[in-house]
Order: sequence, then C-alpha cells, then structure tokens
Amino acid sequence: MSITVVGSIAYDSVKTPFGSRERMLGGAATHFALAASFFDRVHVVGQVGEDFAERDLAVLATRGTDITDVRRVPGGETFFWAGEYGWDLNTRETLETRLGVFADFRPELSPAARASEVLFLANIQPSLQREVLEQCAPKFVALDSMNLWIETAHEELVEVISKVDCVILNDAELRELTRRPNLIAAARELLALGPTMVVAKQGEYGAALIAGESFFSLPAYPLEQVIDPTGAGDTFAGGLLGYLARHLSRVGEEAIRRQAMAYGTALASFNVEGFGTERMVGLTPGEIHRRVDTLRRASSFDAPALDLTLAS
Amino acid sequence: MSITVVGSIAYDSVKTPFGSRERMLGGAATHFALAASFFDRVHVVGQVGEDFAERDLAVLATRGTDITDVRRVPGGETFFWAGEYGWDLNTRETLETRLGVFADFRPELSPAARASEVLFLANIQPSLQREVLEQCAPKFVALDSMNLWIETAHEELVEVISKVDCVILNDAELRELTRRPNLIAAARELLALGPTMVVAKQGEYGAALIAGESFFSLPAYPLEQVIDPTGAGDTFAGGLLGYLARHLSRVGEEAIRRQAMAYGTALASFNVEGFGTERMVGLTPGEIHRRVDTLRRASSFDAPALDLTLAS
Repeated sequence: MSITVVGSIAYDSVKTPFGSRERMLGGAATHFALAASFFDRVHVVGQVGEDFAERDLAVLATRGTDITDVRRVPGGETFFWAGEYGWDLNTRETLETRLGVFADFRPELSPAARASEVLFLANIQPSLQREVLEQCAPKFVALDSMNLWIETAHEELVEVISKVDCVILNDAELRELTRRPNLIAAARELLALGPTMVVAKQGEYGAALIAGESFFSLPAYPLEQVIDPTGAGDTFAGGLLGYLARHLSRVGEEAIRRQAMAYGTALASFNVEGFGTERMVGLTPGEIHRRVDTLRRASSFDAPALDLTLAS
Repeated sequence: MSITVVGSIAYDSVKTPFGSRERMLGGAATHFALAASFFDRVHVVGQVGEDFAERDLAVLATRGTDITDVRRVPGGETFFWAGEYGWDLNTRETLETRLGVFADFRPELSPAARASEVLFLANIQPSLQREVLEQCAPKFVALDSMNLWIETAHEELVEVISKVDCVILNDAELRELTRRPNLIAAARELLALGPTMVVAKQGEYGAALIAGESFFSLPAYPLEQVIDPTGAGDTFAGGLLGYLARHLSRVGEEAIRRQAMAYGTALASFNVEGFGTERMVGLTPGEIHRRVDTLRRASSFDAPALDLTLAS
C-alpha cells in the first residue's frame, strides 16, 4: 500500500505574533507527507529549484517517504511564499509570492507513484490535477483547491471534482465554488457531482464531514498556544488520507471516516504548535493517539436521561 | 424551582436573504424565555412601552412564563431594532436602534422573581446586572454582555463577572474582553475571576464550554436552511440554563453541563428556522429531544482500534 501526493514544495518566510522564520521548508506536499507518512509509505511528486537544500530533502524523506519523484530543476528557484498573520491568526497577508519552478510544474508520475492506491491532489491547477488522474488508477482520490482556481478555472475544477472520491476545501471556498451560503447545501451540491465525501476545513473551529445523508463535525484540538497555522490544512489532509489508506477496504464506513477526521485533526494540531515542519519531524505515534483520544472525549456527550419531561 | 431572566423585550425589523419582517417580537429576555420555559417556570423582568401589543404579552407568557415583572411604561416606546443580514448570515448591519423605555430600565424584581434558584443576566449595562444580583441570592447565575460594555464599562463588567457562575459570550467578545487571541487562554482568564463555566458562542460553528481543566465543543445543529439568526444566542442560553435548572444539584458535573450545551444548541437551531419567535412558540418536546439525539450522533466518533501502529 502507498499514498501519492502531488503538489507544492516551497520555502516559506512566515511572521506570526509569536516569532518569524526565513525560508523554512513548506508547501502542501511537504506538510501532507509529514503527516501521511505515519500511516503508510508516501510518494511525493513535486519540483524544486537548484536552491533546494539537501537537508530539506532529508526532511521530506522522514519516515520513509519516497522522494524520487521530486525533480530538481537546474538553475531554477524553489517556490517561495512570504506572509504575515494577524493577532488572532485568523487572517494572513501575503507579502510575496515567487512561483519559480512551480510555474512550469507538469507532474509526471514514476511507476511507483502511479501504483499507489491513494492519491492526494494538493492545490494546483485543476487541469494539472486532471493530467495526474489520467496517469494512474488509484482506489481513492482526494483533492484540495483554492479561490484562485474557483475564480479562474471554475469549469475545469468542477470537472476534476466529478472524478474524485473526496473534496477537501475550507468553508469559504465551498461557498464560493457553489455560490451557496449554506455549508450543507454546498456540500450536497458537490456530492451530487460524484464524490462520496466532502470535508469542510474550518480553521480554529475544526472540520466537518458531509457524506451521503450523514453530517459529522469535529472541533480543532484545544490548544492554548498556536504558533504558526501554515500548512495545517495539508497536514490535516495527510492524517485523514493516511488513516483512510490504512483502512481502505472500509473507506465507505462512516465510523472509519470519522476516525480519519480525528487523526487529521490531531496531526494538524501538532503542525500549528511550531513553525513550518518543526513539530512534525520528531513527533511520536503515542502523542498522536493521545490527542485523538482527548478529541473523542472533548467532542462527545452522554445521552440525557430518557425521563426528562419538557413543557408543551 | 424557577428561572429569572432580566433583559430586553423588543420589536425587531429584520431583513435576511430569505425575507423580512416588520416589528416582530424580539429581545434577549423574550428569546431566552421561549427556550427556558420548556424546562422550568420562567420569570421575565423587563420594560416595554405603551405600543407593546397584548398578543405579544401572550407570546411572552408561552408555557407558563410569568410576566408580572414586565413593566409597561405609559407613553413610552418599546425598544426597537432594525437590521439586515448579509448573504451568508454571518454579518449583519444595524439600520436603526431606538432604545425607548429600555434606556431608563432599572430592574426591580418582585418577590417571586427574587426567589428563583437560577438567574440569567441578559445583555444590559454591567452596573444594572450588579444591581439585580444585589436583589437576590440565586444558586446559579449566568451573564451575557456585548462589545459596547467591554469597551465602555470594562471594569464594571469584570466586577460582575467575578460574581457569577457562568459567562456566555461569543468568541470575539471573549477575545476583546481579555485581549487574548486564544479562546482557551481567554476562557481560563475569566475562570480565574470566579466563574466555574465559560461558554463561547461561535455562531454557525456551534459553541464551546471551558470549565476547570475540561474543554467541550459542540457544532451547531446541521441545517440546510437558516432563515433568521436573530436571538439564537439568547435561545441557546435559555436551553442551557433551563437544562441546568432542572439538574441544579448536579450542575458541577461535566456530563450535565455538556447535555445542557446540547439542549441549548438544539433550541437555537429551531429559533433560526423562522423569523423572530415564529418557530419557538409551537415547538414540541419531542422535536427538541430528537435534535439533541441527532447532535450526539453528529459529534461523536468511536475509539479507533488499539492495534493501529504508526511509523516512528
């Protein structure tokens, strides 16, 4: 079994109220792989520049992740993003974006990457996501996207959504994509296109899963200190898909999907406790399991006594 | 047993993407009473003008609520608010506010209202909330407030918070009050002042309860159509305090508090399904219990199998 992720590998310069870092390893594929690698072998498909450091390749390869599909472009520059977060970390301003070699990224999957049972199409042009899909036949595919593609490649995005099993978007994107203000109505519209699961990422409020007629909502893991939210969504996706990959024959079961949401949520909580990949590299399985258990207790309540009579 | 609520009784003109209503019955005390009256006898303490209709007094008295503490001021005008909601109902613009008789509201509780075991201080000036507290000795007191008092009466608000058991604010207010961007850190700061429970209202994302070292988060009830969010927070408070009033000897138990959160959440979901009090008047106990049960299923997940090994 293995998981393939196709997406950005980047250098991020990030400033939050709690500090700043220059040119740290980031990108959607990076954050995804660092989470999914706890569950299964991950193949990362991406493109970096000549400036990409060997030590960062080693970080990408954490927990056995295969980096043979990471292409280094001679003379090229790695995708660079600089941003600053507001005081409550709920808003962020992009200070600089240099696409570098990411601008010409045309993913070509190696045989090993094509053979994965699970595929995550991180946020890239919908036409490239479709090209990746045409190269392989995974059993379960999820995709992410962003407002840029909703606004400039709406038709292509809807087309590729119709070919995947799971859509993972933040709730503002779900609303913008469907032009429906109600989250559940928006999700149902996407389910009608083909996917069996829609996951709405809600930042500090957690995430919701809409699948068939069922609805499940899980809060973010309660943290007193969040250092850097960058990459939380892709880390979440890595935990979610990692868990599903480990339970692939049962991926249609609501219980398995909910547990997958919990592992995604737990992993995202570690990601935001440090800058970039700092907290994810040395994380241990025990820490992850413990947070899933805490989440389960923080989100459940006992059925009230049946003899509660109310006025009528 | 009974519950006293002190707060506004109003006429609201509301426009949402789904319609509009002119001068419908509203106000914090009204919405609270319509929810809490399912659980216990409610005493409403408020002030209305000569324009207040008999049929609206009858609505206030739904399910046995005592309205003898609703004072009608001769020649006065009832508090009037007009507002319009944006397309996703997450923003609203106040078009007009006329305080009318609410401007001179100096609550004086009747012996019956003073004798209640549970008291809800809806959003009024903190100094008036303190005056109410000085008139009675309830076993459990909760308060709500708003940004206006956080900004103009910070010291008085902090003082009255130190005298109550439960603070119910939306999360932006919690942040503004404590100047702490992190919700849990903000709640812990308030707990250190004296209350045993802090409830963060999070609108479409539900609500969180912070009490002692425990954290509980519950999503909003999943609705495909929300008509009018006005009064959702006070309806939530009515369900929460109503449930606590019915289990007053066990109010310190986390299980009871969580169930109270669920009843508040279920009741708020009915409130937003119609304009003003439309949906709340004829609501039945069976409908409420069913939504609590749905919420329980929508927010819980099974413990994962213990034999899940992760890479390290």
